[in-house]
Amino acid sequence: MLASLVNGQFTDTISTSDRGLLYGDGLFETLRISQAKPVFWAEHMARLERDSERLGIVFPGQQILAEEAQVLISQSKNRDEFDRGILKIILTRGQSERGYAANPDIPATRILSLSAAPQNPASYLQNGVEMRVCDIIMARSPRLAGIKHLNRLENVLARREWQDSRIVEGLLLDDRGFVIEGTMSNVFLVKDRHLMTPDLSQSGVAGVIREIILRIAGENRSMFKPVQKNLTLEDLYQADEVFICNSVIGIWPVARIEDHDFKVGKDGNPLTTELAESLNTESSTQ
Amino acid sequence: MLASLVNGQFTDTISTSDRGLLYGDGLFETLRISQAKPVFWAEHMARLERDSERLGIVFPGQQILAEEAQVLISQSKNRDEFDRGILKIILTRGQSERGYAANPDIPATRILSLSAAPQNPASYLQNGVEMRVCDIIMARSPRLAGIKHLNRLENVLARREWQDSRIVEGLLLDDRGFVIEGTMSNVFLVKDRHLMTPDLSQSGVAGVIREIILRIAGENRSMFKPVQKNLTLEDLYQADEVFICNSVIGIWPVARIEDHDFKVGKDGNPLTTELAESLNTESSTQ
Repeated sequence: MLASLVNGQFTDTISTSDRGLLYGDGLFETLRISQAKPVFWAEHMARLERDSERLGIVFPGQQILAEEAQVLISQSKNRDEFDRGILKIILTRGQSERGYAANPDIPATRILSLSAAPQNPASYLQNGVEMRVCDIIMARSPRLAGIKHLNRLENVLARREWQDSRIVEGLLLDDRGFVIEGTMSNVFLVKDRHLMTPDLSQSGVAGVIREIILRIAGENRSMFKPVQKNLTLEDLYQADEVFICNSVIGIWPVARIEDHDFKVGKDGNPLTTELAESLNTESSTQ
Repeated sequence: MLASLVNGQFTDTISTSDRGLLYGDGLFETLRISQAKPVFWAEHMARLERDSERLGIVFPGQQILAEEAQVLISQSKNRDEFDRGILKIILTRGQSERGYAANPDIPATRILSLSAAPQNPASYLQNGVEMRVCDIIMARSPRLAGIKHLNRLENVLARREWQDSRIVEGLLLDDRGFVIEGTMSNVFLVKDRHLMTPDLSQSGVAGVIREIILRIAGENRSMFKPVQKNLTLEDLYQADEVFICNSVIGIWPVARIEDHDFKVGKDGNPLTTELAESLNTESSTQ
């Protein structure tokens, strides 16, 4: 069961007139908890504040969210959630009358939930994961692109496309044939020591871990400056290394997309290994 | 205040782990109540069932929704809601663990809410309404097009574009410059006794009233067969008559879009008047 705080109160319910339910009118963050502390808190808060601004949602401030996160974590009776849990923060535009119009000043609804981290096989990190290419075409919407908002039906439909448990993630493309992301992750490729990730100005979620990897790689003298650009499926197939990332999994090498195999292991994907180690160091020394 | 039934229970809250909140993973219908009866019930149910099928949401059946609607309406102590209210039915995929994947068999969540109908000025029907063209570009997504789902951030952002109360509705276009709909309505034009409405295979909501108008017009011998096709803003400006429609307002003539005026009144827009009368007759003789 989930433990939740809604606007500072312990409860597992929200109002049926909350705009998060009515219109998906809100945002969310998923953070990893390590030793009772949210990992990359500052980066998640920076994104949440920036995306609130883009949607015109009244950001309640980092302080109150930090306090509520600590209350929730410290009250957790479940050691798993405490030691290595997942904190989900949903911020909605708040409650309003029926209809799309809303008073610009209504206070946002804060929903914080804690759950145990999923038990993912160690092989995903060591041997890489298998992906498929999803049929659903991601819509292009510059006004919403990059934002981790609550309008996630495309991701839901994409995840419904397969049941085979060997397939760990699905790859999403837009109508131009450009790769956007995974259903729950961002995608990177390495080609001749160049790190590349899809441009997300039209679709997709600009993940916090994606941003951190771009920064880490930019500071690494043994790599070329990382770039965000339009990438096709063929670009991925031609790559030396491919990996996916998000806040819960960190980095997982990709061993296979459809019928195409990638080398994984110390010699197979050295830059992925290096980036995963750097990310791990950063997340544990915050 | 709203009166709500959630899965048959009187309550104003839903679970924080409902997928309607988490991902906008659901659908809704907005019905007008007249003399304690929902108007065009069969048509709304047909659409809800069809759209549930498209999203893979388990449709609970019309019977239980009809029973719950009657419970809610008959318990209403507010005469306004009883005589001329609005019934909103939300159907979500249900509750699940964190993550996009969901068991295909989980029962949908049923949320029925009753509110008083808005008091719209009589002039909207008599003299027509003024519209503006919205800046936001509607994304194209064939898999979601036409469905009245809960991912409505585009409509929310569009409605935030103006505060001027003289502007009643905003017009939404896609990236090809084709008119899709209003923020809360569908759009029709009449040109040389031809009735036309935007093709909604890429974007927009295929409204129940839009469908009924297409049927009524198709049965009307004094008009040409109505068509759904790609229409530009210029097509609207060249039209003899323009109107908008939805379940709450019925039909409203459009008197102005930006700086372009349309004739409204018995002689100005005879087909709009005729269709509004036919729609009114149908809705009161069900």
